[in-house]
Amino acid sequence: MVEIKYEIKESIGSISQSPKGWNKELNLISWNGKEPKFDLRDWAPEHEKMGKGLTLTLDEVKALRNLLNGLEL
Amino acid sequence: MVEIKYEIKESIGSISQSPKGWNKELNLISWNGKEPKFDLRDWAPEHEKMGKGLTLTLDEVKALRNLLNGLEL
Repeated sequence: MVEIKYEIKESIGSISQSPKGWNKELNLISWNGKEPKFDLRDWAPEHEKMGKGLTLTLDEVKALRNLLNGLEL
Repeated sequence: MVEIKYEIKESIGSISQSPKGWNKELNLISWNGKEPKFDLRDWAPEHEKMGKGLTLTLDEVKALRNLLNGLEL
């Protein structure tokens, strides 16, 4: 069995909440003791379970911010 | 076998490219003929294969933009 260790270094915020209380959160997470990465992912209310998500590098987050700021939302 | 139909309605942009030429792209995608959603996902160079990703609603994208604009990057 493979163990994944992670530590939420910084909770940046939630962008939505499901009816069951799961949050789609942007966090800074260290996976297996490595340098923290940005992480956009679904989490159960107390962080007791995680859902699918994406990790993003700093450069990707900057590029994403630029893309989003260029949209008319 | 389950067939997933999708159509890329709008290519918003790429936020990174892997050494193999895959792009992490933000697009507006209609899945199975439904209303298009924002979609952040890895794609092979000619969109011939897709990797893992997340779909995001308009509200989630707006919230994400607000979070990112509040960060010192």
